[in-house]
Amino acid sequence: MLKRYLLAPGPTQIPPEVLLKMAEPMVHHRNPMFEVVVDEVRENLRHLFGTANEVLIFSSSGTGAMEGAVTNMLSPGDKAIVVRSGKFGERWAEICSAYGVESVNIDLPWGDVLDPAAVERTLRENPDAKAVYMQATETSTGTMFPVKEVADIVRGCPGTLMVVDGITGVGVFALPMDDWGIDVLIGGSQKALMLPPGLAFAGVSDKAWEFSKASRMPRFYFNWAKERDNLKKNQTNFTPAISLIVGLRESLRLLREEGLENVYRRSDMLARATREGARAIGLEVFSRNPSPAVTAICAPEGIDGQAVYKTLWKKYGVTGAGGQDQLKGKIFRLATLGYADKYDVITAVAAIEFALRDLGYAFTMGAGVAAATDCLKDL
Amino acid sequence: MLKRYLLAPGPTQIPPEVLLKMAEPMVHHRNPMFEVVVDEVRENLRHLFGTANEVLIFSSSGTGAMEGAVTNMLSPGDKAIVVRSGKFGERWAEICSAYGVESVNIDLPWGDVLDPAAVERTLRENPDAKAVYMQATETSTGTMFPVKEVADIVRGCPGTLMVVDGITGVGVFALPMDDWGIDVLIGGSQKALMLPPGLAFAGVSDKAWEFSKASRMPRFYFNWAKERDNLKKNQTNFTPAISLIVGLRESLRLLREEGLENVYRRSDMLARATREGARAIGLEVFSRNPSPAVTAICAPEGIDGQAVYKTLWKKYGVTGAGGQDQLKGKIFRLATLGYADKYDVITAVAAIEFALRDLGYAFTMGAGVAAATDCLKDL
Repeated sequence: MLKRYLLAPGPTQIPPEVLLKMAEPMVHHRNPMFEVVVDEVRENLRHLFGTANEVLIFSSSGTGAMEGAVTNMLSPGDKAIVVRSGKFGERWAEICSAYGVESVNIDLPWGDVLDPAAVERTLRENPDAKAVYMQATETSTGTMFPVKEVADIVRGCPGTLMVVDGITGVGVFALPMDDWGIDVLIGGSQKALMLPPGLAFAGVSDKAWEFSKASRMPRFYFNWAKERDNLKKNQTNFTPAISLIVGLRESLRLLREEGLENVYRRSDMLARATREGARAIGLEVFSRNPSPAVTAICAPEGIDGQAVYKTLWKKYGVTGAGGQDQLKGKIFRLATLGYADKYDVITAVAAIEFALRDLGYAFTMGAGVAAATDCLKDL
Repeated sequence: MLKRYLLAPGPTQIPPEVLLKMAEPMVHHRNPMFEVVVDEVRENLRHLFGTANEVLIFSSSGTGAMEGAVTNMLSPGDKAIVVRSGKFGERWAEICSAYGVESVNIDLPWGDVLDPAAVERTLRENPDAKAVYMQATETSTGTMFPVKEVADIVRGCPGTLMVVDGITGVGVFALPMDDWGIDVLIGGSQKALMLPPGLAFAGVSDKAWEFSKASRMPRFYFNWAKERDNLKKNQTNFTPAISLIVGLRESLRLLREEGLENVYRRSDMLARATREGARAIGLEVFSRNPSPAVTAICAPEGIDGQAVYKTLWKKYGVTGAGGQDQLKGKIFRLATLGYADKYDVITAVAAIEFALRDLGYAFTMGAGVAAATDCLKDL
């Protein structure tokens, strides 16, 4: 018998009540029964994103909404500033390049801290930059970025939009769009929203809607203005991923029931406990500014990070993630977002101990679990 | 008590075993356990599409794959021929227009028969047309189009692709891509594939892959070459709609178990019975070449088609569809694709009788159901 524990930074575990809701017989989307669902979802998404504006819903993975944040806001030949410090920062630059947008990249070593002054300087040097594209937290490195501080800078530039990929941020820590002045905030279903992948979200500010009027990019499936107009009637432009939206109603209810502040505190404490558990057995956390969503742990000297990840999955039932691209083999990752509790973290740390013992790493068995448990005593 | 019967032309009913599969705990997509699923799905999709090439899988509604059939195949300024005889034919022209492709439209009255000679003539007048875009069956009017005959014509034009929206066709009747010379064949999950909406498919011929090499359209989320390269490794370019792919494995198994010829015969006979049931109570079928996927029935003189559709749904538990755009109020529609059997059709015809009686239409109660039942005696 091998029980499976999913602790990857997306997809994440799904609460049984959400799974069951999605297993109910299919309903039709052009129907008042479904419109009631969409109406409730709209309200709870606005609450989660901290905005009075509509939060758009797309049937796609998060990348589809990232693409839309370029194709609905800019025009070919425009310039944009991109913070690149991991796989998903690179994705912003790739999307810009695919659509003929010149990206001025702020390149940081992966896992490094972003100094808001670097954005300020780059904006001063490129006053014609139409947008700043960045992550709230970079999933590939487990790093937090100073969204509020950067938003404060961009807010002062009427010609520049603040666009944040919050795919592993929304529902993990506060990203109040309207308060902070985030113009576009992207989310995805398979992270803190505790759903299967297949839905993406975008909160859009009034300033961003103004930009979208001037945008001359070709678009059809990801036409944000049309989605907004449909959403106001509790509809979607095209047939939506109905079962996922039915599940979304349930997961948004769960988040609201727990209370967003409690959800954020939980993720934060789970990530702290993961880090303390790792450190207690001599491991190093990769990021210089670790995220509450996902913890990247450096493989010990002489041990392959992919071997840790694979042993965790194959032999010990815990699905985390390995390192991507330049970090492949160097790190392994464990997530603490969405439907994860203290026992998940204790389980994960125990599995790390078992796996590292197998791989010949020397440490005091149980020290990691003890430290994690101590860290979690007040959660 | 009001039991619900879903007989809309998408979404359609989902077999309970497929619903339950999708309710299993989430699995990670970058994992051998999921790769086994994708491997089986690829093989069964090739069988369903009648092709030796890969059938691409997108996390989007069917429209996303239609968009990709323009953005991956053509370049801005190209010319394409579009058959327009309903809402979805119009969609092809809208996508072309959004991406700067000049569409030469073959406009037919909605519900009319397409004469392949019209395509031949248009191709002769526009030898520079890079593609013919059409539907296998137009969902908005319940009409079949002569795909094989048109493909025979396009096959003789090395500079022109044959692109078919088979969203309500694949799995309803035979559309063997390789045999017929269809270059791109589009499918959607929420039709004959008996799944929730959220997945789209595209079979792509060698000729189409050659065209895609020359295409200079901007694209990122719907990058077909990258999807193909990932699919060969049982992966997807971005995080896919995992639960729907898990369900897809199950529904493709069901289709193969029944045998495609039997599936096609079933849909055909169900649609015939729907038409005979309607005619037996004096109703007229809207299309001049009716589809086995969906039957559009004209509302009787003096009765609003929307009222029929709404009464069916509200009072009699049967969810069909109304008319769209120019057909709104003139027709109502009932589908016979996917997980539908003879009792579904008898139920639907009975509900039509109940609803029309309420709306003041004069006929012999039970005549429709009797005709439908007689029609279904050998299924």
